[in-house]
Amino acid sequence: MKIPPIPPILIEASEAARRRQAELTKPHGSLGRLEDLSAQLAGMTGQTRPRLASKAVIVMAADHGAALEGVSAYPAEVTHQMVLNFLHGGAAINVLARQAGARVVVVDIGVASEFEEAEGLVRRKIAAGTRSIASGPAMSRAEAEQALQVGIDVAGEEIRRGLNLVATGDMGIGNTTPSAAIVSAITGLPPRQVTGRGTGLDNAGLARKTAMIEQALLANQPDPDDALDVLCKVGGLEIAGLAGVMLGAAAARVPVVLDGFISGAAALIAAGLAPQVRDYLLASHLSVEIGHTAILQHLRLPPLLDLQLRLGEGTGAVLAFHLIEAACRILDEMATFSEAGVSKG
Amino acid sequence: MKIPPIPPILIEASEAARRRQAELTKPHGSLGRLEDLSAQLAGMTGQTRPRLASKAVIVMAADHGAALEGVSAYPAEVTHQMVLNFLHGGAAINVLARQAGARVVVVDIGVASEFEEAEGLVRRKIAAGTRSIASGPAMSRAEAEQALQVGIDVAGEEIRRGLNLVATGDMGIGNTTPSAAIVSAITGLPPRQVTGRGTGLDNAGLARKTAMIEQALLANQPDPDDALDVLCKVGGLEIAGLAGVMLGAAAARVPVVLDGFISGAAALIAAGLAPQVRDYLLASHLSVEIGHTAILQHLRLPPLLDLQLRLGEGTGAVLAFHLIEAACRILDEMATFSEAGVSKG
Repeated sequence: MKIPPIPPILIEASEAARRRQAELTKPHGSLGRLEDLSAQLAGMTGQTRPRLASKAVIVMAADHGAALEGVSAYPAEVTHQMVLNFLHGGAAINVLARQAGARVVVVDIGVASEFEEAEGLVRRKIAAGTRSIASGPAMSRAEAEQALQVGIDVAGEEIRRGLNLVATGDMGIGNTTPSAAIVSAITGLPPRQVTGRGTGLDNAGLARKTAMIEQALLANQPDPDDALDVLCKVGGLEIAGLAGVMLGAAAARVPVVLDGFISGAAALIAAGLAPQVRDYLLASHLSVEIGHTAILQHLRLPPLLDLQLRLGEGTGAVLAFHLIEAACRILDEMATFSEAGVSKG
Repeated sequence: MKIPPIPPILIEASEAARRRQAELTKPHGSLGRLEDLSAQLAGMTGQTRPRLASKAVIVMAADHGAALEGVSAYPAEVTHQMVLNFLHGGAAINVLARQAGARVVVVDIGVASEFEEAEGLVRRKIAAGTRSIASGPAMSRAEAEQALQVGIDVAGEEIRRGLNLVATGDMGIGNTTPSAAIVSAITGLPPRQVTGRGTGLDNAGLARKTAMIEQALLANQPDPDDALDVLCKVGGLEIAGLAGVMLGAAAARVPVVLDGFISGAAALIAAGLAPQVRDYLLASHLSVEIGHTAILQHLRLPPLLDLQLRLGEGTGAVLAFHLIEAACRILDEMATFSEAGVSKG
C-alpha cells in the first residue's frame, strides 16, 4: 500500500469563488454556510465554478469479531442480508441516493459470508470479518494495508469513470465498537465518553460494550501516533476501506462527504496517515452517536446537518449532497448585480 | 376576508406512517427527524405514504414606509429590481427552486412602483407600499384583510392546479423592521432582543432600527391578542399575504414550509388568527436574524436546517424541500424487514 500524494487546496480558485459570491444579487454573506462551502469546493477542485454532477456513495461492508460478543442489537448475519438489500435497492441509502442522483457502489471488503457476482457489488474481500479486538488485534498490519488499498483502488476506478463527488458509507454489524475504540485511541478520551448505543443498545448492553472497548485498548495498546497501528489493532476492514477511499479521492481533488460515526472513525485514520486529506473532507451531519462530536472537533469539521440520524450506510452524507450541489449552483447560476441591474447596498 | 376552516391533523394517517417506519429495514428511529417528519406529513395530508411532487414557493413582494428612514442597508428601489430578477430567473430563489423542481410564484402585493404583465408574476397590489409605522399604522384594517385574502386566493389557485407542498418567501427592502415589531408585540419581548441587522446594518443602523421599532410600538399600541390589529399597525403587505398563504394552504391540508424571519413573523400573525394553522407549518431553518429564535419557540417549531442564512426570498424553505421529500421517499420506497429478508434486532 502506497498512500497517493495529496495536492494542496488551490487558494486562487477559492478566492475567485469568494469574489464572485460578493457580486451575486444578495446581501453579502446572506447565504451563510452555502457561500463558504462554494469557496471550499472551488479550492478542492481547483474550479472557480465547480459543478459536481457525477456522484456516488461507496458503501464498504465487513463483519466484526466484536459482533459475536453481545455488543450489538442485531445478529451478525444482518451485514450479509443488508448487502443484498442494497443490491436490490430497498435500503435507506438506495432511496436517498436515487433522490440525489447518485450511484451506490457496494464493496464486500470483509463480510463473513460469500456473495455471488452482482451488479453494483465490488468483491474485494480481505478476510471473512475481523477477529475480536478484546484480546488481540482485529487484523494484521498487512491486512489493514490491503484494505486501505482496496479503498484507494475503488475510489480511483470510480474517478476514472468521471466521479467528482463521493460519499462514504458503511455496513457492518458491531462496527460502532471498533469505531469508538479508534476514537478513544486517537483523541485520548476515555471509552465511556465516546461509546454510544449504536443501533439501539440498552443500558446493560452499553456497559458491556464500553467494558469491551476498555479491555481492547488495554490488551492491544494501540499507538495514537501510528494510525496504521490503531487501525489494525482495534479497527475494522470497512473502516480501513473508507479511509482508503478518502485518501484516493483527495489525491484526485475529489471532495469527500463523510457520513457519521463510522466514516468519522475512518477519517481519523486517514488524517493520521496523511493530514492533508482533511482539506478534502466535508462533514455531512452530526450523528446521535455520542463519540461523533469528538471526531468532528478533532478534525475541525463543522457538520452541515443535525437531524438526529444514526443509521450509517452513507445516508447522512448523501442527504448533504443536496446542500453541496446548492452551493455550487448558487455560485454558478445566480445573476450578478450588474447583470441584473440591481443596486448594491 | 373570511378565514377558511382548518381541518385537524389526521392522527390515524400519522400513526400508520409510524407503524410502517418501524417495519422498514433500519434500526428503529435511526433516521431521526426524517422519521418524525414523515409521520407529521402523513397527518397533515391524510395520506399514509404522501408523495409531494408538485412544489412551489410563493414570494410576496411589497415596500415599506420604514425603508425610507435609514433602517436598511439597501435603497427601496431594490424591491422592484429584485422582482425583475426573480422573473428573469437570476436570483438565489430561482436557482434553488430549479434545483428543487419547484415553481416560483411572485406576487406584487404592495411594491411602490408598477410592473407590466409578466409570466410568473401575480399582480394583486393592495397599496404602493405601507406607510411608516413610526407614528401611525402601516395600513388600514381593511387593507390588511385584503392582503390576507390575496394570500388565501393565491394559495387556493395554486392548489387547484395541483400544488401539494408550498414554501413561503418574501421580498421587501426594510421588512425586517415590521417583522421585528410584530415579534416584539406578540411575544412580549423587548425590541432590542428581537431586532437584528437585516441585510447588514452597522451598529449605528441597528440602534436607529431598534429605536424606530420602540417608537412604532409606543405610537401604535398594537393589541397582542388581536393579530389583525398587530398586522395592520406594525406589519407589512407581504407579511399579510404570507399569513394568508399559510391559512389557505392549511385549509386544504397542504404543508407549508416557512422560510426565515419574515415568514416567521407572518406565521405569528396566521397563528394568532387561527391557532390550528400551526399544525401545517414546518420550520425550514434557523435564521441568523436574532429574533427568529423567539418566533420558533413561540410557535414550538424546531428548524430543520441551521446554515446561517439570512437572505429571505424563500431560499431556506426551498432548500428544506429536499429533506421533506427525503422523509416521504423513505416512508414510501424502503423495503420492510420481511420483504427484504432481513432479521429484526
